[in-house]
Amino acid sequence: MKEITSTKCCEGFQKRFQHFSPTLHCDMHFSVFMPPQMLDGNKVPVLYWLSGLTCTDENFSTKSGAQKIAAQLGIMLVIPDTSPRGNNVPDDESAAYDFGLGAGFYINATQEPWSANYQMYDYIVKELPHLIENNFAVTNKKAISGHSMGGHGALVIALRNPNSYTSVSAFSPIVNPMNVPWGIKAFSNYLGKDKKDWQMYDATWLIQNQNISKDFKVRIDQGLADQFLAEQLQTQNFEEACRRMQINTDIHLHAGYDHSYYFIASFIDEHLKFHSKFLYS
Amino acid sequence: MKEITSTKCCEGFQKRFQHFSPTLHCDMHFSVFMPPQMLDGNKVPVLYWLSGLTCTDENFSTKSGAQKIAAQLGIMLVIPDTSPRGNNVPDDESAAYDFGLGAGFYINATQEPWSANYQMYDYIVKELPHLIENNFAVTNKKAISGHSMGGHGALVIALRNPNSYTSVSAFSPIVNPMNVPWGIKAFSNYLGKDKKDWQMYDATWLIQNQNISKDFKVRIDQGLADQFLAEQLQTQNFEEACRRMQINTDIHLHAGYDHSYYFIASFIDEHLKFHSKFLYS
Repeated sequence: MKEITSTKCCEGFQKRFQHFSPTLHCDMHFSVFMPPQMLDGNKVPVLYWLSGLTCTDENFSTKSGAQKIAAQLGIMLVIPDTSPRGNNVPDDESAAYDFGLGAGFYINATQEPWSANYQMYDYIVKELPHLIENNFAVTNKKAISGHSMGGHGALVIALRNPNSYTSVSAFSPIVNPMNVPWGIKAFSNYLGKDKKDWQMYDATWLIQNQNISKDFKVRIDQGLADQFLAEQLQTQNFEEACRRMQINTDIHLHAGYDHSYYFIASFIDEHLKFHSKFLYS
Repeated sequence: MKEITSTKCCEGFQKRFQHFSPTLHCDMHFSVFMPPQMLDGNKVPVLYWLSGLTCTDENFSTKSGAQKIAAQLGIMLVIPDTSPRGNNVPDDESAAYDFGLGAGFYINATQEPWSANYQMYDYIVKELPHLIENNFAVTNKKAISGHSMGGHGALVIALRNPNSYTSVSAFSPIVNPMNVPWGIKAFSNYLGKDKKDWQMYDATWLIQNQNISKDFKVRIDQGLADQFLAEQLQTQNFEEACRRMQINTDIHLHAGYDHSYYFIASFIDEHLKFHSKFLYS
């Protein structure tokens, strides 16, 4: 693991690392924010942030403004990339924005030529926390959050690993990828045509079929002027599934907000405060 | 004036406009943040933000996180571009980052071929406030701030127009451009070889020669790990000149911080609170 940049920010440090990932068979970058409490020698909990289509680890780092509240609350931020990377990693032939590089969908691909590298689920759930816990002074508490494709990733990962994460939150998540164009395109290519193999990567399916605890901690924020809401996100499918299963959800719908980082920056403080309650309890 | 984008942010609106500038003889873009108080029908004061070399109106808009505190305090942000733009505007032959497009230095050029377009001083001091005051419900109070080349611009503009601005602040400003490579290169090309013609664009010269009021309101923040501090910024020249002239300054030196937007994001709240005292007094 090699430190690429280190920049003081909000009395802590924003850093970028490069490492070879045995899970993804390629070099990867990720970013972290180390809050000032860590520099004082205290162990802190971690919030993993999963970004959306076309993003790298740098979009959230530069645009969310999350460092200020993370510094106040004493939460380390870990911000991975959104897919395997490099010239040896296969990409969509037409370099589409919604499949291939920059669009790993946080799944373990089973189909050729994707399966050798596109193992983002295992990278996020296993390899990256292992790397963080071995290299930084963190507590055993972690939470997960994300935006759009990353909101899908965060929900799926928390629902499948309820003992590993105190809480999950998402901005504008793809809650039901099996039923929307982005998800159908990605899953049929990465996972094959059998929709049974897609279920474990669909938050709306998981909430109804995996004996999720009534005490599952989830917050979702969704803008009502989001250009992708009706076709790709379909927040209401998850909301209805939660209601049917009597699982409490904290879903905030915001008139006038779109799908951009200006929406994330407007409400990121509330997400970190939500997680802090459980990370520090 | 044409609205290009409008994005809800922090209960206000981040907007981008295009207009033809008679001062610069070209089409220009600028961004604004309208705080929620404006949407409720209240007039608010304005903070003008001048960006640094290579920037457009979008860097501060996406990276500073200033909207949250501007929304709390009720301050409109106006964020112009850093030079005239377009295919008909002359640029440095080698497309250098520190001269020509993206490097207007907030001066009125007198030399060919620059003088027809590079009139950024008049654009910021006259044309843009006129446009803002005719198109938005603002009070007659305005302040000015900026970063690096934009910090130079903010200081010079406030020192030369003390009745027009309640207060000025700067991150990592070029306080004494007549004596540093960036300034010497820009001024000798835009303004000619006679250094007398440079003086009115040099904050350190102005503070010593223009009967500046002892009550001049200025705040400067400077990172001590700034890679440009020793050669290009030379904060101490301004500090010493202010001390000699018995003008109070509020200069904050920060160990470990560099020249980046992570530094601005760390302290932008303090700058807006500083201006708010005077904008609302």
